[in-house]
Amino acid sequence: MGKKVKAALIIIGDEILSGRTKDANLNFLANWLNGVGIILDEVRVIPDVAERIINNVNDCRSRFDYLFTTGGIGPTHDDITAVNIAKAFGVALTLNEDAKKMLADAMGTDNLTPARLKMAMIPEGASLIKNPVSAAPGFQMENVFVLAGIPVVMQGMLLDIEHRISGGAKILSKALHVYAGESIFADVLVEIENSYEYLSIGSYPFYKAGSYGATFILRTVMENELNQAFSELQDKISKKGYESFEGEALQGKN
Amino acid sequence: MGKKVKAALIIIGDEILSGRTKDANLNFLANWLNGVGIILDEVRVIPDVAERIINNVNDCRSRFDYLFTTGGIGPTHDDITAVNIAKAFGVALTLNEDAKKMLADAMGTDNLTPARLKMAMIPEGASLIKNPVSAAPGFQMENVFVLAGIPVVMQGMLLDIEHRISGGAKILSKALHVYAGESIFADVLVEIENSYEYLSIGSYPFYKAGSYGATFILRTVMENELNQAFSELQDKISKKGYESFEGEALQGKN
Repeated sequence: MGKKVKAALIIIGDEILSGRTKDANLNFLANWLNGVGIILDEVRVIPDVAERIINNVNDCRSRFDYLFTTGGIGPTHDDITAVNIAKAFGVALTLNEDAKKMLADAMGTDNLTPARLKMAMIPEGASLIKNPVSAAPGFQMENVFVLAGIPVVMQGMLLDIEHRISGGAKILSKALHVYAGESIFADVLVEIENSYEYLSIGSYPFYKAGSYGATFILRTVMENELNQAFSELQDKISKKGYESFEGEALQGKN
Repeated sequence: MGKKVKAALIIIGDEILSGRTKDANLNFLANWLNGVGIILDEVRVIPDVAERIINNVNDCRSRFDYLFTTGGIGPTHDDITAVNIAKAFGVALTLNEDAKKMLADAMGTDNLTPARLKMAMIPEGASLIKNPVSAAPGFQMENVFVLAGIPVVMQGMLLDIEHRISGGAKILSKALHVYAGESIFADVLVEIENSYEYLSIGSYPFYKAGSYGATFILRTVMENELNQAFSELQDKISKKGYESFEGEALQGKN
């Protein structure tokens, strides 16, 4: 059993809070972190306001093994993430020559306007995170990874992060669906969960195409626990007179 | 000018953090709140853990005019929102006779199993929020609205909330798109934003169908400000030699 490694995500952006834009980074990052054995344990969505960025970054970077931020590293006046990460760490924001070169290589030196050069202003002591899509880099300060908000750019930046982090024991999971109310199985779920050391079972009702039911998600770091508990749940559902179906968790339900 | 009325949302659910389920409530609630003149100012996604629920609820209910929670009010062992809201307020969780009647009317008294009756356990002093979809109610404690996590149920519950809240001045907005890098207009955006009292301008780059560009969102509570600033921005973009297009913010970008 490795220790649990936990991460937080801070989504910085008025456009998510106003409802104009649907965030796509939470779900992608959650799955990506799962794949490297890290648990996403908290997400915050906050506006483009200096003190909110500073306070939330300082709170989360001390409480979690890793902190990711998305948004606010572009060239315009409302992109204030980098300067406030610098403030959170108590360091200066300076022109980073490597970042400047990345921009110059992509856009041409003649096109390095003051607005674009803003994207090369990086907190002192940070290491850059490559942006394979649009050149302007993200950066890492200690356990904090500062990424772009545009999903395709954020996802591209993750390619330059995987080797910098280390996860814990990987969480394994299986899903079982029934077309019946979850309350019928409430006793069974508690009984099974309590009889295994690391197992947790989540119960998620759904309404889909006119029928309703529930998905039970079994999660544990121990493969033998997972398989035993899964069989036990199948049996107990069957003994109550219901059919169950193994499968992926249904997307779109909540 | 009315005062700004601000709300927070706490999404309670391991299934969102694990990536199994894509949250759909944030975006819906953001738009719904906009429509009643309330600003969604912070969102948190936290796991089904007692102390995390208690601490986050107490933090957010004191900092914001309204707090909404989604998730964790079903019949199974992992549904622990109600009991922890009671703890956050320092009140008992008791069987609510009105809630019990709602369940009995929908399911029949004979079907009120112990698991289902759990959904009628409500913090003392709360007022119920009707659930037009599946009967089990949400509830309101002071400025905190506790809602279901299933999107269709959450949305149904909002019908019983609108008359209980009061918003501030409604925020008006307009969007303008250009097919050019946002950095070209960085100076213009600052200049215009600074010359109006309540106006804020957000700049959001996009990549779409092989072309890239930026969307500028102007937001203010003053209609005359909005119209003047919008015309001014159109003129200044045109003077830089670019065409702009009025329209809705592009969904899917970030």
